[in-house]
Amino acid sequence: MSREPALSVDDIELAAERIRSFAHHTPVLTSDGINRMAGARLYFKCENFQKTGAFKFRGACNAVLALEREVTEGGVATHSSGNFAQALSLAARIRRVPAHIVMPENATRAKRAAVQEYGGEITLCEPTLEAREEMLAEVLERTEAAFIHPYNDELVIAGQGTAALELLREVEELDTIVVPVGGGGLISGTALAVAGISEDTRVVGVEPSGADDARRSLEAGKIIPSENPRTIADGLLTSLGDMTFSVIRAFVDRIVTVDDAYIIRAMRLIWERMKIVVEPSAAVTLGAILQGTLDVMGERVGVILSGGNADLDAIPWIGQDVPNQPVS
Amino acid sequence: MSREPALSVDDIELAAERIRSFAHHTPVLTSDGINRMAGARLYFKCENFQKTGAFKFRGACNAVLALEREVTEGGVATHSSGNFAQALSLAARIRRVPAHIVMPENATRAKRAAVQEYGGEITLCEPTLEAREEMLAEVLERTEAAFIHPYNDELVIAGQGTAALELLREVEELDTIVVPVGGGGLISGTALAVAGISEDTRVVGVEPSGADDARRSLEAGKIIPSENPRTIADGLLTSLGDMTFSVIRAFVDRIVTVDDAYIIRAMRLIWERMKIVVEPSAAVTLGAILQGTLDVMGERVGVILSGGNADLDAIPWIGQDVPNQPVS
Repeated sequence: MSREPALSVDDIELAAERIRSFAHHTPVLTSDGINRMAGARLYFKCENFQKTGAFKFRGACNAVLALEREVTEGGVATHSSGNFAQALSLAARIRRVPAHIVMPENATRAKRAAVQEYGGEITLCEPTLEAREEMLAEVLERTEAAFIHPYNDELVIAGQGTAALELLREVEELDTIVVPVGGGGLISGTALAVAGISEDTRVVGVEPSGADDARRSLEAGKIIPSENPRTIADGLLTSLGDMTFSVIRAFVDRIVTVDDAYIIRAMRLIWERMKIVVEPSAAVTLGAILQGTLDVMGERVGVILSGGNADLDAIPWIGQDVPNQPVS
Repeated sequence: MSREPALSVDDIELAAERIRSFAHHTPVLTSDGINRMAGARLYFKCENFQKTGAFKFRGACNAVLALEREVTEGGVATHSSGNFAQALSLAARIRRVPAHIVMPENATRAKRAAVQEYGGEITLCEPTLEAREEMLAEVLERTEAAFIHPYNDELVIAGQGTAALELLREVEELDTIVVPVGGGGLISGTALAVAGISEDTRVVGVEPSGADDARRSLEAGKIIPSENPRTIADGLLTSLGDMTFSVIRAFVDRIVTVDDAYIIRAMRLIWERMKIVVEPSAAVTLGAILQGTLDVMGERVGVILSGGNADLDAIPWIGQDVPNQPVS
């Protein structure tokens, strides 16, 4: 029943060509101290330095730029309260078309402000799946905008794969690439890039323990959506789509999980040792290595740091709501 | 009465050569958003990515590597509770000699741990100038170590100048370079580099309003040490030395001050927009631009981000002790 995407590394190469003048070629950083702790050589692909602060811009930019001119007259639209909302807004601005963003009315003021800064037009809805879809349908009818799904979209997936493409060309002979899994767009693009140009590299996805729908879906052989997911990694609450599910099933080695305490520990370690700001969702990969749910001992490992849009007023290791830190 | 340093850009070139294999050539980052706010084009030289997390490693490394072999038998020694302590410890480890660090007994556990991680041997003393100098004399006599002053030292100054050297070679036609001022080592090295290879660039130092001994010293024409300096920028509490004072007097355009509220605002802005971690002392420069005590409207400005060793458990804009944020 799932749509089989006819995607390959060629689509990712094409996406890379298309977004080249607009997206950053982000740096790969390393840390001797973190390598010692991990017992491996980690190569961090820093998508926190990507435009709008997250890898999402790659996919949004590819999708918007690939649209036929007549399709873009009404602009583009999506539903997102997070990084894809900002990404699509900026991509639309580059194409000089409007971006309509359906957001739940409980989205933080900071998130709304970020979308507005990139020129996105926000339509608020009640924070339920039903209300969101109704509102999106209404917006699409009113504006005749083209809908761009945040992850269950071939052009979006191809765009997200360009981060891994850059990483694989810069760092040779990676044994493993580790990627956070939310809706599955990033890991799908990554897995397709790896399958096309570095077939000896395994691709491992990491989910928060409290939002492990991809792991359960793979086990069950069908999509099992998240119910009441709960994690500090707020970018990873979404469930797989049919397209990302089928790519993951075909090309991803395995999915592991990580507890919030280790996500926070990894996030703090990255800030402290690498002097860069990453959001909780970006720290799940190192978190899994620290927790030991992912064994990469002695390997060369690519780690995609997915984004840097952390809430600087709510640092998770400061204050009352902190889960207990694991003993090191 | 002051020692006239016979330093020039040649010493900085030599230092660059000497430390090349050991220190990072740090990146220069820019932010469109911050440029818009500042009304200028700012080029941030990211010494927060330098080894040990601060520019201090450049000077320490140059000084330690330049020592004659017979002098290093007893190792090296200094007094510092901050970034120079870590920097000298790592430089000594590279040279394979011991580093003796005299620290006040009220230095945080984190700071002691950082020094120990780089192999420095700590001797604690009471937190007074007198006790520190007595303890240092004792250590020097016991160990026969070579004393390396954290900033009032020609080799240290020359090493610190290598950051500006890299910046000036990477970014052309800078109108201004802005530098934090504590003991004056970084601005002295910067000013000498500028004088040697980019004489149309002006060099401006920034001090916290609560630790403005350099500004007052320049006005008075003689060194006026800080008395009870008070600022969030804990790397800038020290007073000028005779050597740094004479270089600053000869080569620095002016010293401006910045209030703690603007230091904090600038620090947060750098974290949020650039996704990098900088310490309060590194944010004084952008703080002065935001506060308007430094006017760089329309200019091309080099900004030396001096370090990234922020206390991640005490983020200054979170919690009770925050000075009021200025209205934007």
